[in-house]
Amino acid sequence: MAASALLKSRVRRPSYLNKLAKAEDLIDFFPHGSYIGWSGFTGVGYPKKVPTALADHVEKNQLEGKLKYTLFVGASSGAETENRWARLNMIERRSPHQVGKEIAKGINNGQIKFFDKHLSMFPSDLVYGWYTLDKPKNRLDVAVIEASAITEDGGIIPGASVGASPELVQMADKVIIEVNTASPSFEGLHDIVMSDLPPARKPYLIMAPEDRIGTPHIPIDPEKVVAVVESDYPDQTQPNAPEDEGSQAIATNLIEFLKHEVNHGRLPKNLLPIQSGIGNIANAVVGGLSKGGADFTNLKVWTEVLQDSFLDLFDSGNLDFATATSIRFSPDGFKRFYDNWERYAGKLLLRSQQVSNSPEIIRRLGCIGMNTPVEVDIYAHANSTCVMGSRMLNGLGGSADFLRNSKYSIMHTPSTRPSKVDPTGVSCIVPFCTHIDQTEHDLDVVVTEQGLADVRGLSPRERARVIINKCSHPDYKPILTDYLDRAEFECLKKGMGHEPHLLFQAFKMHQNLQEKGTMKIDSW
Amino acid sequence: MAASALLKSRVRRPSYLNKLAKAEDLIDFFPHGSYIGWSGFTGVGYPKKVPTALADHVEKNQLEGKLKYTLFVGASSGAETENRWARLNMIERRSPHQVGKEIAKGINNGQIKFFDKHLSMFPSDLVYGWYTLDKPKNRLDVAVIEASAITEDGGIIPGASVGASPELVQMADKVIIEVNTASPSFEGLHDIVMSDLPPARKPYLIMAPEDRIGTPHIPIDPEKVVAVVESDYPDQTQPNAPEDEGSQAIATNLIEFLKHEVNHGRLPKNLLPIQSGIGNIANAVVGGLSKGGADFTNLKVWTEVLQDSFLDLFDSGNLDFATATSIRFSPDGFKRFYDNWERYAGKLLLRSQQVSNSPEIIRRLGCIGMNTPVEVDIYAHANSTCVMGSRMLNGLGGSADFLRNSKYSIMHTPSTRPSKVDPTGVSCIVPFCTHIDQTEHDLDVVVTEQGLADVRGLSPRERARVIINKCSHPDYKPILTDYLDRAEFECLKKGMGHEPHLLFQAFKMHQNLQEKGTMKIDSW
Repeated sequence: MAASALLKSRVRRPSYLNKLAKAEDLIDFFPHGSYIGWSGFTGVGYPKKVPTALADHVEKNQLEGKLKYTLFVGASSGAETENRWARLNMIERRSPHQVGKEIAKGINNGQIKFFDKHLSMFPSDLVYGWYTLDKPKNRLDVAVIEASAITEDGGIIPGASVGASPELVQMADKVIIEVNTASPSFEGLHDIVMSDLPPARKPYLIMAPEDRIGTPHIPIDPEKVVAVVESDYPDQTQPNAPEDEGSQAIATNLIEFLKHEVNHGRLPKNLLPIQSGIGNIANAVVGGLSKGGADFTNLKVWTEVLQDSFLDLFDSGNLDFATATSIRFSPDGFKRFYDNWERYAGKLLLRSQQVSNSPEIIRRLGCIGMNTPVEVDIYAHANSTCVMGSRMLNGLGGSADFLRNSKYSIMHTPSTRPSKVDPTGVSCIVPFCTHIDQTEHDLDVVVTEQGLADVRGLSPRERARVIINKCSHPDYKPILTDYLDRAEFECLKKGMGHEPHLLFQAFKMHQNLQEKGTMKIDSW
Repeated sequence: MAASALLKSRVRRPSYLNKLAKAEDLIDFFPHGSYIGWSGFTGVGYPKKVPTALADHVEKNQLEGKLKYTLFVGASSGAETENRWARLNMIERRSPHQVGKEIAKGINNGQIKFFDKHLSMFPSDLVYGWYTLDKPKNRLDVAVIEASAITEDGGIIPGASVGASPELVQMADKVIIEVNTASPSFEGLHDIVMSDLPPARKPYLIMAPEDRIGTPHIPIDPEKVVAVVESDYPDQTQPNAPEDEGSQAIATNLIEFLKHEVNHGRLPKNLLPIQSGIGNIANAVVGGLSKGGADFTNLKVWTEVLQDSFLDLFDSGNLDFATATSIRFSPDGFKRFYDNWERYAGKLLLRSQQVSNSPEIIRRLGCIGMNTPVEVDIYAHANSTCVMGSRMLNGLGGSADFLRNSKYSIMHTPSTRPSKVDPTGVSCIVPFCTHIDQTEHDLDVVVTEQGLADVRGLSPRERARVIINKCSHPDYKPILTDYLDRAEFECLKKGMGHEPHLLFQAFKMHQNLQEKGTMKIDSW
């Protein structure tokens, strides 16, 4: 097969051009039951051609349910690939994170065996062999990795994400590289380290977000590369969730708190490295820092994913450096990024998720970690994953990597969400979380549009009062206060009042929601 | 006041001898409302004279409830000090861990504001100022630190524990040193690093349990030392909990598993550094390794606390090196240790709890972490702290530091415990933990005397089957299986079956225990 000039300009390893193939000719590398790794993280940098060819093959030959795979991707990939795989019943097992209606459906109807995992831990457990216990030498069968370019040594220069690609390459016997020529080469934007196994593991010698400790590409044994495919369309990202009044109020409360901490000498004037999640609250917070003017200058970011709002923060002049494992811009954001490459590229670095989410580094840097939960309880446990304790949304992601280890561990959430029949039918502050991903030992601050609860150094009962009083919606404040009063009364009299609960009524608000469409109960 | 010859032999800083005082003359350093730090960890290395003098003062002058303090100790101190303080209503607030009937009573009847915290995080949050938000410059008023000797520079050489002493000294304006002359000097047995604040925090350059990165003493500004007191009796420790049939069966299952992992090449022949908790199961496991003969040689230990069983492991010849933040031997164990100092001292190192429990180091070393919970649920969440969700036992300790970051994260527990009316009235495997300290994302293995559940890489529903089948007691297997069957049926049909629960009946076994004295319910 002849290589296009564009492809040749990206692939500096001549021997790889001899391995050029069409995706549809690679079906035989994927027998039923294969353990597969894909590059990709938050819907960028994922392989496009091979997954699509496999889906076409299944569709054309009515093989639904007959070609099923164990699929590992650092986090989510593109909807047109894994979501389609889910619809075609091609996914037997999946970890550690996903986004998409069809895949969520498959997980929650029992078709797909999914487990979520701390994103820092996933690549580590992968190289331990934890996810391939039944495979010879605990290896993966094949990894499909998107590259934006290839070095002389055959090393892979990823695109807009690194994710778990280094470890997937490390654990795979065969690697297929998709070279994406529809997006620019991202060469120079990455810092990659591979995973040693204990007892040979080394410290990550990173003392600041801009520190480099690795190589600009993923090293690979070229003999493992069984095929190279040219990929001809860019990441299919979505526009950003817009800021709304509620998320701006949350951001205002949060920024007020950060100023307060600076004033009390507990935080440097340029803060500490910021971690911010995905979504409209995160956008509003980062937007607020952009508009902070002289209050917040020389900021740095150590995070998992960069959204469009970080481009604004760069443009405001307040952001000196940002590092993450993925740049998940909107289509407009990518255009803006590519059009102004020189302005941003020197201030950006992409790392593997094992590094971006490393407890070691997050704790050393003293990050300000901010995330949005499904619900928080009055004692500051949080649910990040399962609605009503059972229905999986996307997975844990890196929330617990950051919330356990940051200097400031912050949960921001609207105080309520609408249900089908009540605009404030769901309280995000509940007596007892129906699923717990973050423990009471991990959160410092809970903030809603109502206010901010600073729970540092507080006992559980104090914590509960301040969370209810500062954060809960007025519709729920009396209900939650009544719960706490009754629980304190019952538990203290029995000498079990450290963290008072009416254990056998703790989910009554959730039951009311299920039965009547709102959490507003008449009484406990 | 004249110094004894014994005291002079321990205190190499002459100026300190001018500060010699009697504990009963130091009462004025402790006005009502003071924020106080004590040395000590798991009941060793705690100050004895000053706390006792303060308690005597309160008792003699009927000051119960009128002299109350915020008290921080790395973990638990001696029963005759903090337990007595609790009885005399002298503790307003306490963190992060405690042991003793009176203090537990005060916490659970609402008298003492207690919060537990990851033991690695406590000293870190302390130097951030999180626990002293209302104090000028976030400082502590006074720290009382036990030393076994003092260097020429005035540095403190701790005794059998380091705990949070470095950070307590760092944060206190005044320091009182109790030099204990009733136990030997522990000089040479410690490796101490102080806590930098971000953004100046550095990596812990430890690549093996024996690595030293600090000083053999706690550095201190000598002008902060306001008094030195001679202390004349040793740590009041208790005999060890004896091994029983159940704990030996658990240990046998666990050791079988470790051999299996070695055989499959996922673990080196000399394992990886072992962390083991306190109690009879931990003793049985370490005992099992001692009796392992040629199977387990050249072992190393990276743990929080060393119990007597580690002396056996040293004596077996199988243990090359052990490091911890505390040596909590029984009185017999301490005698054996002192009598054979030369045999053990070169193979032992005590560090601060911020280092012994550091996520950075635990993850790098790839520890084998083993702990005992209150209860584990079918999806592998665990409760380490609160009985029936509310009654505090001792606190989180370092369980989550190790279970989140170890290579092997193992929970070992009897499958049942006796209730008042039923020898197997309490199942330690439950549908839903009443308090969650360890999440499903953190555990690899659950083991009881019934068997071992290896849950690595399993989806929640698979995990639940294997935990119920391998670990639960025969009396509860049908009950738990019925719960899971019904929960799967209900949740899958609603499309919310990722982690199936009968949410509104999830605590029915606990309710039955409370009402009828056993978790054996008739039906769901």
